[in-house]
Amino acid sequence: MVKRESQEGLTVKKEDDFSEWYTQLLHKSELIDYTDVSGCYVFRPRAYAIWENVRRYLDSKFKEMGVRNAYFPLFIPESLLKKESTHVEGFAPEVAWVTHSGKAKLNERLAVRPTSETIMYSAYAKWIRSWKDLPLKINQWCNVVRWEFKNPVPFLRSREFLWQEGHTVFATREEAVEEALQILDIYANAYKELYAVPVIKGKKTEKEKFAGADTTLTIETFLPSGKAIQCATSHNLGQNFSKPFNIKFKDKDGEEKFAWQNSWGFTTRSVGVMIMMHSDDKGLVLPPRVAENKVVIIPILFEKTKKEVLKVAKQVEKDLIQLSPILDDREEYSPGRKFNEWELKGIPIRIEIGPKDLKNKQVIVVRRDTGKKQTVKIKDLKKKIPSILEDIHNSLYKKAEKYLKDSIVEAKTMKDLINAIKNKKLVLTQWCDDAECEDWIKDKTGGAKIICIPFDQPKKLDKCVYCGKPAKHVVYIAKSY
Amino acid sequence: MVKRESQEGLTVKKEDDFSEWYTQLLHKSELIDYTDVSGCYVFRPRAYAIWENVRRYLDSKFKEMGVRNAYFPLFIPESLLKKESTHVEGFAPEVAWVTHSGKAKLNERLAVRPTSETIMYSAYAKWIRSWKDLPLKINQWCNVVRWEFKNPVPFLRSREFLWQEGHTVFATREEAVEEALQILDIYANAYKELYAVPVIKGKKTEKEKFAGADTTLTIETFLPSGKAIQCATSHNLGQNFSKPFNIKFKDKDGEEKFAWQNSWGFTTRSVGVMIMMHSDDKGLVLPPRVAENKVVIIPILFEKTKKEVLKVAKQVEKDLIQLSPILDDREEYSPGRKFNEWELKGIPIRIEIGPKDLKNKQVIVVRRDTGKKQTVKIKDLKKKIPSILEDIHNSLYKKAEKYLKDSIVEAKTMKDLINAIKNKKLVLTQWCDDAECEDWIKDKTGGAKIICIPFDQPKKLDKCVYCGKPAKHVVYIAKSY
Repeated sequence: MVKRESQEGLTVKKEDDFSEWYTQLLHKSELIDYTDVSGCYVFRPRAYAIWENVRRYLDSKFKEMGVRNAYFPLFIPESLLKKESTHVEGFAPEVAWVTHSGKAKLNERLAVRPTSETIMYSAYAKWIRSWKDLPLKINQWCNVVRWEFKNPVPFLRSREFLWQEGHTVFATREEAVEEALQILDIYANAYKELYAVPVIKGKKTEKEKFAGADTTLTIETFLPSGKAIQCATSHNLGQNFSKPFNIKFKDKDGEEKFAWQNSWGFTTRSVGVMIMMHSDDKGLVLPPRVAENKVVIIPILFEKTKKEVLKVAKQVEKDLIQLSPILDDREEYSPGRKFNEWELKGIPIRIEIGPKDLKNKQVIVVRRDTGKKQTVKIKDLKKKIPSILEDIHNSLYKKAEKYLKDSIVEAKTMKDLINAIKNKKLVLTQWCDDAECEDWIKDKTGGAKIICIPFDQPKKLDKCVYCGKPAKHVVYIAKSY
Repeated sequence: MVKRESQEGLTVKKEDDFSEWYTQLLHKSELIDYTDVSGCYVFRPRAYAIWENVRRYLDSKFKEMGVRNAYFPLFIPESLLKKESTHVEGFAPEVAWVTHSGKAKLNERLAVRPTSETIMYSAYAKWIRSWKDLPLKINQWCNVVRWEFKNPVPFLRSREFLWQEGHTVFATREEAVEEALQILDIYANAYKELYAVPVIKGKKTEKEKFAGADTTLTIETFLPSGKAIQCATSHNLGQNFSKPFNIKFKDKDGEEKFAWQNSWGFTTRSVGVMIMMHSDDKGLVLPPRVAENKVVIIPILFEKTKKEVLKVAKQVEKDLIQLSPILDDREEYSPGRKFNEWELKGIPIRIEIGPKDLKNKQVIVVRRDTGKKQTVKIKDLKKKIPSILEDIHNSLYKKAEKYLKDSIVEAKTMKDLINAIKNKKLVLTQWCDDAECEDWIKDKTGGAKIICIPFDQPKKLDKCVYCGKPAKHVVYIAKSY
């Protein structure tokens, strides 16, 4: 028997069993489907539409910065992947290897790209010869594969995911450093402006940075599951790749120099972050700016008044066409069932049109995020709905921001730190920058990590939470995905 | 030593050595770069921008038809790929197999998708249960891999390529048949309206159809290399997949029925078709509607008048901003060198602004396709340039149409057919529909194939060019890519 889909609502609460709630939510709201390959998921149209919206936004921001799109091959020869040693150490354990084509064994194994530094930079070495060729700013939108052995989680940790990877080359370190910060701002804004998710900006510790980077800048947030998550990263690669890949340019002064490079990426993980942050026991809550359909119109149909109600519903649909409304005029389902279905699927606003309201030339408008109802005159809808959508966006952001702030606990001692981690908090504490202390903290807390060294640092520091020596930074520590 | 790029022009003529001309053209115009993996190419920004334009066009046409985008995994388990036997026979010899992840051997080999019927339809079987779920229309934009052993040709025959694949499901055969035709029209229009390339619509013979299809509809054209090429295809899959994949629905009459399916695809091959059709001995000729930059402005700089000329050049750039103009104000290169560079790169229109013309408040406008020069008053540019661009598009199309028509030769006997094939023609002849005659024709002509059975059939038929029995169709025969 083929398993058929169910339109039923969620049977667990977000608070009671977060993981089961998330799984049910993704499946029942028709965002994700599973396949026979563990960790590889189908992004159904409702999910992909969110990604398309984000992609459009980021793509236009990149283009404003002079970044151009390109496409590099999926397959990277093993020898090429190995050219930068730290890089390959980081990625080799997770590489999916192609060994055969048809019945023939390949001469050299091919890595399915886990990231494209190596294949892109071997091309860059051919393209760049003078300072006039710089900066070179290229981005690609593609799929990548990282065969991780941790428990896969749809969107957050999948073996194949979609992303953009920007790879830029500069004549000076300063330009590279500035761009990496600019990109981090674009990423943080995307989370704020599209997903209504607040993030913390910072940099990764030496231990947690990207394999092959000088510095990894990151945005992080904290989810209602009680875990932190890395939202997007922007890396200063320094000259770590330009040297082995021989990316040299003749500078204005006539000297041959190695170039300075950045890489930066934003992935479909972000969709999962947004879902976990906002959604509730009724199902998906979609911030309006990424929702494919921002409004659902449900005419309340009775035999006598059907014709009239449908006529108005169609007019409303037309008036709001910019918002890609769904007109649910199916007669085989009750209004109540329709309410549940569209709540499950996260449509930001529901408009109910019944015969009684029509007499007063008004409709009922229901917000998905708060459930609040209000009556709105039909003639005002075109003006009112967009402003309610804005309000939904803002209040989702504020709620998430409050959650993030309330999750932060300061710890001055290891005892406080361990307790706060047990209570699923995001802990702000002080650290001496020593990797050994970082290891001990992880060990003593049962796996909590230094999430990031936030940009926002106090003027005065006290002492390291672990060793008691003078602290060099405040850091965020938490369990994380 | 790293190989550096050269800005030199082409050293061979299209007529003299087509293959070398094409290779030089792609490399020197910065469209393509090679990698260490044979048959896998880098699509550089100038090439990718063309694909982005086509993608945008097709995507909006699909969305008008109610098609929604989604994303299915790259990896297909071997057992799933084998579920439809004709299909797997067609694709298995070209599959790239993933056998290992990190150091571990996988339990089951994974195919890097050569096409996604099998993985999509195993999901469809879960999603479809009633006639209310139909039609289901899903498309994905992605990369696919077919490890062919024929000689690879950038764009035309690469081991990895980009495409869209639409996969639609209907309750009736009639709806499916109608949609496949509609899609073929969209594809033909994309070639005409974007690439300025005329195509012939038809269907494939049983031997040449898609592995697993009932019928393959195709658009074909004929290139200046003297070879035909398949431009895009739209397949009626009938119930060939719905049966093994168990895609059933409960119809209005209460009965369970197998669904009717189509799949259709348009690939980056199309970029190569366009390039081969229009480009010339000076380099790339880009039809304006797909060109990233439609205009290049070249100020003719002398010390005395530089300031004034640059000022006007910048104003012209602003006036034409909708056409993404390039203002080439580099002082280290001569105008002549710049002319060559932008001709090589195929910018449709060049605007030369010199001090003499300024006195008359005019500029010189040069068409890339014909090389024709004209003077245009500066105040008229905003109106005139778009109409010249339209004219370029139309005359490229007409020229290609004439070439296609002139390439067609009718043959009534095998002798005529063999001769015409030798002369690199597209042969129109008659055929009895017998697969054995099809084989013999291929054999006797040294590999020419029946390209398609055109939709456009005469009322009266004569006899099969090979066996002399009554003909059932006129067909096109040619050597092909």
